[in-house]
Amino acid sequence: MNNTAIKLKDELTPMTDKEFEQKLRNIGKERYHDNCKFHHLLHSGMLNKGQVQAWALNRYYYQINISIKDSALMSRIKDPDLRRVWIKRILDHDGRKDDEGGIERWYKLTDGLDLDRDYVKSTEGILPATRFAVDAYVTFVKEKSLLEGVTSSLTELFAPKIHKERIVGMLENYDFINDVTMAYFKKRVDQATDDADFVLGYAIEHAKTREEQESVCEALKFKTDVLWVMQDALYHSYINGHVPPGSFMPEDFNDRYTENK
Amino acid sequence: MNNTAIKLKDELTPMTDKEFEQKLRNIGKERYHDNCKFHHLLHSGMLNKGQVQAWALNRYYYQINISIKDSALMSRIKDPDLRRVWIKRILDHDGRKDDEGGIERWYKLTDGLDLDRDYVKSTEGILPATRFAVDAYVTFVKEKSLLEGVTSSLTELFAPKIHKERIVGMLENYDFINDVTMAYFKKRVDQATDDADFVLGYAIEHAKTREEQESVCEALKFKTDVLWVMQDALYHSYINGHVPPGSFMPEDFNDRYTENK
Repeated sequence: MNNTAIKLKDELTPMTDKEFEQKLRNIGKERYHDNCKFHHLLHSGMLNKGQVQAWALNRYYYQINISIKDSALMSRIKDPDLRRVWIKRILDHDGRKDDEGGIERWYKLTDGLDLDRDYVKSTEGILPATRFAVDAYVTFVKEKSLLEGVTSSLTELFAPKIHKERIVGMLENYDFINDVTMAYFKKRVDQATDDADFVLGYAIEHAKTREEQESVCEALKFKTDVLWVMQDALYHSYINGHVPPGSFMPEDFNDRYTENK
Repeated sequence: MNNTAIKLKDELTPMTDKEFEQKLRNIGKERYHDNCKFHHLLHSGMLNKGQVQAWALNRYYYQINISIKDSALMSRIKDPDLRRVWIKRILDHDGRKDDEGGIERWYKLTDGLDLDRDYVKSTEGILPATRFAVDAYVTFVKEKSLLEGVTSSLTELFAPKIHKERIVGMLENYDFINDVTMAYFKKRVDQATDDADFVLGYAIEHAKTREEQESVCEALKFKTDVLWVMQDALYHSYINGHVPPGSFMPEDFNDRYTENK
């Protein structure tokens, strides 16, 4: 076969389950935001408190939109069995009996970082790039196929590792971080592992044609872009010192918080 | 009056036309992207060809979405008179008899920069932040009020100045830029002036309550955020050298194109 014929065959032949899973894992390896420099600075104790505040404040906007994203997705699911599984995510974030939920645990972090809770809730100080990226995620699950909406969560495959690194690294390296403020991540290690296993199984079961498999890969790539843009914007603003007008400005930012302004 | 009373009065009393216009102009002064460092580097000849390519490639995604944004807005306008005015923008971008249109003129720029036209058209190489920001603009005019949708164009008030600086600065400073490649901006100087005058008049006429006036200010702020995020993402990626996986990589980027990688 010549090159065109090989390419055509590739486009038509579905990957085996193993190949498909490997392709998804490779996307994570290349594009998951643990490759971002901000992430390493965060975990290794290289950030000051204002920079950690900026991270927690911006990431809050992501946290509060997860249940909105999952509700939008559920509104498109016709199968009660799948809804029954998916609703766990909303309960995990919004809370249920005997569990305050992920959003409440996030306030433990922002409280511990001395951020005013009303300011956090207002989302006034977040970076525009954070808002655009997170909103794009909500729009994605509303507009794309159900398969793509579900499998955009596949980043959870790579989350437990980053959460574990975060817990150890942040507890060790920052005196303003403790077990209480890290409660969100402790809980998410197990939750994300269960969720990811389910979504990977769902992807393998429901993406049968090559085209469907590729659409799942694109959905995962899209989601890695969302997380990557959030990290890059934090780096540009709070490490390199280009904070956009109106966004959160840590105390003493101009004196101490920039590397190469 | 105590402070709360003054604040309450401010929230209820409409601004005069003059105050309102001044507030809009102040937003531009603080938040328009001519404040971004990338813009100054671009105009002053401090960028190399690969960095100018990255700018033209990313900005292309904005260009092709303007008519989509304006079509979405027109689908919400009930008044034929306003549609008759607004359609000019789509014709300006898409072209009409005896005028090839803004998108075609943008290809003159990307062609002149030796970017492959199919690659440009694919939008494969644009930064994820560019995509999220531009998509947010399209979503904004679909979801917000008509007044907000129309007045998000108020950034045009500040565009002619930046276009003039761009034409002079780029022609002077880059040997790969000439009159043909700058055709887009030459045309836009007059178009944007007419358009901006109309929208400013529209804002003053249709935003009567204080709440409406504030919503126009927020719409303008939103739009400045869109443009700002695009510039910041270019700076972070192509000046500071953090190009995300899959985005356009200029030739010899690793050797020559970074300032402080």
